[in-house]
Amino acid sequence: MDIGFLGLGAMGAPMARNLLKAGHTLHVWNRSPGPREALQQDGALTYATPRDVAIAPVVFSMLANDEAVRSAVLDDGLLDALPAGAVHVNMATVSVALARELAALHQARGVGYVAAPVMGRPDVAQAGKLNLMVAGTPDAIARVQPLLDVLGAKTWPFGEAPEQANAIKLAVNFCLASAVGTMGEASAFVRGHGLAPADFIELITSTVFAAPVYQGYGGLIAREQYSPAGFKLALGLKDVRLALAAGEATQVPMPLASTLRDGLLEGVAHGDGELDLAALAKVSARRAGQR
Amino acid sequence: MDIGFLGLGAMGAPMARNLLKAGHTLHVWNRSPGPREALQQDGALTYATPRDVAIAPVVFSMLANDEAVRSAVLDDGLLDALPAGAVHVNMATVSVALARELAALHQARGVGYVAAPVMGRPDVAQAGKLNLMVAGTPDAIARVQPLLDVLGAKTWPFGEAPEQANAIKLAVNFCLASAVGTMGEASAFVRGHGLAPADFIELITSTVFAAPVYQGYGGLIAREQYSPAGFKLALGLKDVRLALAAGEATQVPMPLASTLRDGLLEGVAHGDGELDLAALAKVSARRAGQR
Amino acid sequence: MDIGFLGLGAMGAPMARNLLKAGHTLHVWNRSPGPREALQQDGALTYATPRDVAIAPVVFSMLANDEAVRSAVLDDGLLDALPAGAVHVNMATVSVALARELAALHQARGVGYVAAPVMGRPDVAQAGKLNLMVAGTPDAIARVQPLLDVLGAKTWPFGEAPEQANAIKLAVNFCLASAVGTMGEASAFVRGHGLAPADFIELITSTVFAAPVYQGYGGLIAREQYSPAGFKLALGLKDVRLALAAGEATQVPMPLASTLRDGLLEGVAHGDGELDLAALAKVSARRAGQR
Amino acid sequence: MDIGFLGLGAMGAPMARNLLKAGHTLHVWNRSPGPREALQQDGALTYATPRDVAIAPVVFSMLANDEAVRSAVLDDGLLDALPAGAVHVNMATVSVALARELAALHQARGVGYVAAPVMGRPDVAQAGKLNLMVAGTPDAIARVQPLLDVLGAKTWPFGEAPEQANAIKLAVNFCLASAVGTMGEASAFVRGHGLAPADFIELITSTVFAAPVYQGYGGLIAREQYSPAGFKLALGLKDVRLALAAGEATQVPMPLASTLRDGLLEGVAHGDGELDLAALAKVSARRAGQR
Repeated sequence: MDIGFLGLGAMGAPMARNLLKAGHTLHVWNRSPGPREALQQDGALTYATPRDVAIAPVVFSMLANDEAVRSAVLDDGLLDALPAGAVHVNMATVSVALARELAALHQARGVGYVAAPVMGRPDVAQAGKLNLMVAGTPDAIARVQPLLDVLGAKTWPFGEAPEQANAIKLAVNFCLASAVGTMGEASAFVRGHGLAPADFIELITSTVFAAPVYQGYGGLIAREQYSPAGFKLALGLKDVRLALAAGEATQVPMPLASTLRDGLLEGVAHGDGELDLAALAKVSARRAGQR
Repeated sequence: MDIGFLGLGAMGAPMARNLLKAGHTLHVWNRSPGPREALQQDGALTYATPRDVAIAPVVFSMLANDEAVRSAVLDDGLLDALPAGAVHVNMATVSVALARELAALHQARGVGYVAAPVMGRPDVAQAGKLNLMVAGTPDAIARVQPLLDVLGAKTWPFGEAPEQANAIKLAVNFCLASAVGTMGEASAFVRGHGLAPADFIELITSTVFAAPVYQGYGGLIAREQYSPAGFKLALGLKDVRLALAAGEATQVPMPLASTLRDGLLEGVAHGDGELDLAALAKVSARRAGQR
Repeated sequence: MDIGFLGLGAMGAPMARNLLKAGHTLHVWNRSPGPREALQQDGALTYATPRDVAIAPVVFSMLANDEAVRSAVLDDGLLDALPAGAVHVNMATVSVALARELAALHQARGVGYVAAPVMGRPDVAQAGKLNLMVAGTPDAIARVQPLLDVLGAKTWPFGEAPEQANAIKLAVNFCLASAVGTMGEASAFVRGHGLAPADFIELITSTVFAAPVYQGYGGLIAREQYSPAGFKLALGLKDVRLALAAGEATQVPMPLASTLRDGLLEGVAHGDGELDLAALAKVSARRAGQR
Repeated sequence: MDIGFLGLGAMGAPMARNLLKAGHTLHVWNRSPGPREALQQDGALTYATPRDVAIAPVVFSMLANDEAVRSAVLDDGLLDALPAGAVHVNMATVSVALARELAALHQARGVGYVAAPVMGRPDVAQAGKLNLMVAGTPDAIARVQPLLDVLGAKTWPFGEAPEQANAIKLAVNFCLASAVGTMGEASAFVRGHGLAPADFIELITSTVFAAPVYQGYGGLIAREQYSPAGFKLALGLKDVRLALAAGEATQVPMPLASTLRDGLLEGVAHGDGELDLAALAKVSARRAGQR
């Protein structure tokens, strides 16, 4: 079928390719031309503006943040161009407030809106093994489910209100930031006691913390390998900020999230925003005067 | 061989039984008589004071905290009673400062001292599958290694300074408290958004956080099942406090640990110190006015 | 001269009256009609929309928050209605970002824009003894200086960029929230030791903390007198949130502000947002299980 | 009368001199000989050990911390040497736990024990204008009141349990550290907005924060003048740590104190422990990447 796709970054590009491989006709747009041309060589049809891809009855978007989504979907007219009955699947990690606003705007125009933020790094996206947190009206979800199955290993349903999937995603990313920040503090602590953080990380990731997040980020911390970034520290700050804002809107204090935010901001202030989130460990080490 | 064993609590009792089953002669002491009598029925020889078990050339101790260790080993005379050449294996989670002090006192008397704090809950202790973090002089460790192999699935060596194994253990328990506190905050957050914490916990523990700590404590949080306690919240507070003190002694600020300490203390202040550490989630819920 | 005035709340009303008393012709608007009518009885001319007061060449606004300012000045058309050469004096505590945006929008239309947030409670406003933090172009400030002198005891200049006065104001209110939160924690601490918070507050406010903020809020905490609110806890939360946002925009981590934000949010979550900021002490007491 | 005095540091020396000037016979001891000799030239009798000054029926001590007090009073035998009926006035900022322990030990020997920690810097001590927080049995206090009146401008009574005066003192010093830490964060914030911290400090210390603590420490922050230290940052860390410990013992969470502790520890980790407490502002600036 004809599918629109906005946003061909580190995550979007492999996802779009998987839809191409599954035999669909892809209509793609990306702000910068490079990724657009790469997809064109793989067989996608490319366009100059977001609204052009509304030619397809189902449009996916995988954009960087609230501003990019607002720009493409509202300012540049994707939503205006989509016909009633179309479905827009927004896979970005956006704020709960924007998700709620978009859901209402789409509904007012008779366009289906599905929130489907994802868990997984670029290699997982390429393998089509993402975990998808999905919320939206049942009929809209039903229409796109076969496509979601192309992109992910599993769909986790979180009800009919799209913003709830985004709330879940923010909670996941808060847990992620907390795990990384905790390993960072613990690494400074063991280093302070004359031990190698790598030995400590190996211990916990082989035993009680033997999970992908700890093994992946723990390995980066152990090797102090913060570049290239799989998930940028600055994006981690953005997500924790969104979690705090969503928590405030529902009157839920989150002091661990606040502490993480301050650490992430300190990382950005020292020029490490483009490094991997694992570079949060540098903040703990600096505070201890270890470098 | 003859083995002394001090402390027959939820962890010590199954460990002592495993040594019995392996064919050793056990000389045991416990402050309260109940557990002592239970071990006697299983074949152990029991004594009225800690110093009595110094009849054995190797003594294990698995006591609750610094005060209990100081009382049994120093005040009640275990160390005085141990002959030169004996080995004392301290498996408790004690402060780095006490570990250092004990190491020096044992060395001065020619008694081997091995720190061997453990990871694992009582059922893991019973199965002999604990992970042991071990530090001490190589010859002392070599002498007790066959016994450590009876108690644990794996020994993780952390050098010759006993206090380093305790530092590692405090780092592990800090990570544990952080994981639990993080799930608690995230649960309050998703509840605030009209979602069930159990659904969120299932999501993360099936995917990127599929590790024993998250699955075990996450399940307790999801079911709000805080009693009986596998690991008491008050002991979690003790361990985080010890981590902060050890961090301060080596000039390592740990703001996440500070935040966790405040939450754990709040739990104790509300009468939940004897509940499972998972009850830290109650603190987050209360702060949000959710109960 | 003819002066416009938007916002006749607890602060705005006595300020407007002082301008009236000084002999000026006042053109006022307020969202709710009650305060409008009260000013009318005192001799002010009243209007139904914000844009109507643009009849005057100088307009003051004293509105509650960013949303109220945006609504009156942009959506309801005050700025559109002001002629080139007019001056708008915004005395509200708004975000640094909005201040910057408004400064640019006014400049584009040739309208002077002066930020003049104030320090002082309603009784100080009534006495015309406010401290004014002022920033804007020198000529715009010069035109309104005689009027500022009617409202305040002293004008503190902070340069030509209006948003800088707002940054200063947010810094002041952060200090205020911190002083109150600190007295709240200290009060719970001394109560925990069997002492009366009032005795402690008397000690410090008679000696090293003998300053208006400590004496005023300290007295409220000592008497547990949280209503009526001179400065609402919910507004304190707003201001600390704005300070954190402005800090993030300039990459300045503020962990004390984060801790205060979490406490203020906890107060709001427990229904105390409309109480005086001093009710932050209730949060500390509750955390300690003291009530 | 004959008065013993232990501890002739920056605070103790001028206090001892004031007692000399009032006509008393002073028997003094200090760990290092320099200050001892200086007092001797002023007319005091000097001794080689703490226990020697027990020749006087009233002994003051002004020592640095718990360890110094424990060493002089218990290990080096002052208490053993004091006859029944003597009074020991401990003016140091010690832990609540040690104060309680000392009170019991003195009582058991029939020696009066008065806790009288002080507020004020060395110049205030010299002027005899200290504020004294005093607790102890009424008859013991009555005996030393005339001497307290020589040392201080005012005595603030806090009951019969000596440790309560120490609790109050820790609460005061927590407030002090919080005020300094808050000005440090606010200074980084205004600097981030292109403003001079000195202008901000002048504003608040001339208006709503016109109190000695803000003016004194604020001036040091404004001038970035952190040496010589009037009150060392490392001592501030000690006092906040003691406050946290005393809070934990009475189940009072103090998240602001925790945040301050982490900042102070960070200062010590960067080699600034011997600078004035005002150097806490350096920590905020460093976190923001401002230096």
